[in-house]
Amino acid sequence: MRTFTRSQELLKRARAVVPGGMPAHQNPAMLVRDQSPCFIERAQGCRFWDVDGNEYIDYMCAYGPMILGYKHPAVEEAARGQAALGDCFNLPGPIWVDLAERMVDLIAAADWVTFGKNGSDACNHAVRVARAFTHRGKILMAAAAYHGIGSWCTPNPAGITGEERVQVLTFPYNDADFLQALLDEHRGEVAAVVVTPFRHEFGHDQEMPTPAFIEALKAGCSLEGPLLVVDDVRAGFRLHMRGSAEYIGLKPHLSCFSKAMANGYPISACVGVKELKDAAASVFFTGSFFSGGVALAAALATLNEMERTKALDKTFHAGQMLKDGIQAQAKAMGLGICYSGPVTIPFMTFKDDPDFAKAKTFCAAAYQEGVFFHPYHNWFVSAAHTDADIEETLTVTEKAFRKVKEST
Amino acid sequence: MRTFTRSQELLKRARAVVPGGMPAHQNPAMLVRDQSPCFIERAQGCRFWDVDGNEYIDYMCAYGPMILGYKHPAVEEAARGQAALGDCFNLPGPIWVDLAERMVDLIAAADWVTFGKNGSDACNHAVRVARAFTHRGKILMAAAAYHGIGSWCTPNPAGITGEERVQVLTFPYNDADFLQALLDEHRGEVAAVVVTPFRHEFGHDQEMPTPAFIEALKAGCSLEGPLLVVDDVRAGFRLHMRGSAEYIGLKPHLSCFSKAMANGYPISACVGVKELKDAAASVFFTGSFFSGGVALAAALATLNEMERTKALDKTFHAGQMLKDGIQAQAKAMGLGICYSGPVTIPFMTFKDDPDFAKAKTFCAAAYQEGVFFHPYHNWFVSAAHTDADIEETLTVTEKAFRKVKEST
Repeated sequence: MRTFTRSQELLKRARAVVPGGMPAHQNPAMLVRDQSPCFIERAQGCRFWDVDGNEYIDYMCAYGPMILGYKHPAVEEAARGQAALGDCFNLPGPIWVDLAERMVDLIAAADWVTFGKNGSDACNHAVRVARAFTHRGKILMAAAAYHGIGSWCTPNPAGITGEERVQVLTFPYNDADFLQALLDEHRGEVAAVVVTPFRHEFGHDQEMPTPAFIEALKAGCSLEGPLLVVDDVRAGFRLHMRGSAEYIGLKPHLSCFSKAMANGYPISACVGVKELKDAAASVFFTGSFFSGGVALAAALATLNEMERTKALDKTFHAGQMLKDGIQAQAKAMGLGICYSGPVTIPFMTFKDDPDFAKAKTFCAAAYQEGVFFHPYHNWFVSAAHTDADIEETLTVTEKAFRKVKEST
Repeated sequence: MRTFTRSQELLKRARAVVPGGMPAHQNPAMLVRDQSPCFIERAQGCRFWDVDGNEYIDYMCAYGPMILGYKHPAVEEAARGQAALGDCFNLPGPIWVDLAERMVDLIAAADWVTFGKNGSDACNHAVRVARAFTHRGKILMAAAAYHGIGSWCTPNPAGITGEERVQVLTFPYNDADFLQALLDEHRGEVAAVVVTPFRHEFGHDQEMPTPAFIEALKAGCSLEGPLLVVDDVRAGFRLHMRGSAEYIGLKPHLSCFSKAMANGYPISACVGVKELKDAAASVFFTGSFFSGGVALAAALATLNEMERTKALDKTFHAGQMLKDGIQAQAKAMGLGICYSGPVTIPFMTFKDDPDFAKAKTFCAAAYQEGVFFHPYHNWFVSAAHTDADIEETLTVTEKAFRKVKEST
């Protein structure tokens, strides 16, 4: 039986010096208490090893950033090449221009780009550009959607003043009528509608946007305002290389990327259409490390390698194989599950599992057998997951489903 | 004569795809138009080479992050060692705990720490922790002080709603009476007073805090509220290894670090006293790359190397030598200058130079001779600046002062 002794020791030390003990989204209390790893020693390809030496096939991919496999040779080589020149300078390096041109060339709705470090940086910037361009204040977003930790949208209001949120209004994702009514009610006041390319909120079955919702966004948003902002931080480069908006048939005025764009190196980007370029220039957006060359070089290598190797096709193939296998197993065992969202960013919940007890039993069993899923958060598949990895995974999920069956 | 042909070519390409053409704080329009480099190829020690092959002794240090010298062997080795294991995982690595313990041990006012990527991340978090702890909304900050691009403080209001700033009030730095009156007027409503350890706003002679100002901060701030937040993002580890607050005799409840703490790797930290730990845990603070191990390993190596080699002593020595040399040259030439701030983060302005014309002449001449200063922004000295580098610099400043003399 696998143990997590060293993980628990490190967690105890962490609790002494860090509020909450762990980074919020990486808190092992969100996994399966005392039955999951808390710290990771190393990673390679689609696998990682925790600090107790346990090996896992990984279906969280660092919560999205890993897309080509941890320590992918082409990405690492590009990063090392830039690091040999240096990273953070007084001024950008040529790689900054190279990546900017590549992004504008690649992304469907991009006439310009600006780089940050966090997904939050990109989403905050998009909202400000929309407000600066439209001279309006109100922002519409889907209830419970995650757009980072900006004061306008952070999911937990602790430390946020009421005023910071007063111009942010919410609608239920996929409720075209509600969205339309909200737009009518605040006509002339809304700077932007901000949406993720599908519904992927924490602890909830995922939903692709409905045709009616897409139509409402198209009909409701224009350069006259409100603008359409697609937050592609989580899904970017896992649905379509030209941006997830292309996949769902939207043409956003502003889009936000991060996570997978540099295979784990810290970078984010806000892109927009040409009409917004002056407004974007008017918004102050900077940070000490925003032009650091190593992450830029890693991003360029990631995008190039993804295209060269058709990495997205591989990711879809792996994701479909995982979905088919898991659905067949659940059906054969008579377990009701909902396997939702794109196969490259899937999520599985059990029917009649309001407190996620079955999900936790499933995940704890998988951790014991060397596969890493998350009980409440959507999963991520990568191009590094081979058929052999998926087959190995499915032998584990079969055992994990049996544990769930036995426990109910 | 040095030319900047390739810099100008890259700038032209950048303008086509990036709003404003360059990252805001790195815009060469802020240097000397058409007479300064715009892009950097590589850096080593205290020197960098622009894309036209011109070499410079660097007194901006990437706007602060570089403190031990670009590509410092001990820092690069630590970063490479972590990169061999991996960087961004599903969970933190042991290095995350190691650095957290080191920061709590090192920083005077730190019972806990949390890591981000940008200085803005740390400052935004500090303000939220103060609001969460005190259940108050108002923030007091020095007029024109820079605390990053959070909506509560970003220097340019484009894209920011009035509501986001309504609870932020300003006082003139070093005006103890004004601060006291503001605190009296808003008694019971102020969550925090946020200050930098000295006045270092853009385009202004620097000022160390006066004894009366320090006393007003001590008398006005307490755990009952308002809390004292020291934004040490720019000055941290250039005044005192235990935090700049120690250098000026303050005991803040919250402090923010970034820039120099990892010698250029992207990281920031918010630290606080134990009474605020629960409040800090209540504020949602996370990002995809916040626990990335490479920057954490670089930070630990930077702090260790700084202590081991007494790097701060070396930086003060270099800074004092630069100041003494420049002041002597200006005096000998009959040029009135103000050389202000700590010698490790100095700034020089010319008397009767309201539009910085003399400063630009001085800087443009220095660029031609291979020394990099900024005409409006404070400078940074590092431990990598040797006596020989300073001597070489002073032969250049002598020529640059002569150019100023000739032009007036």
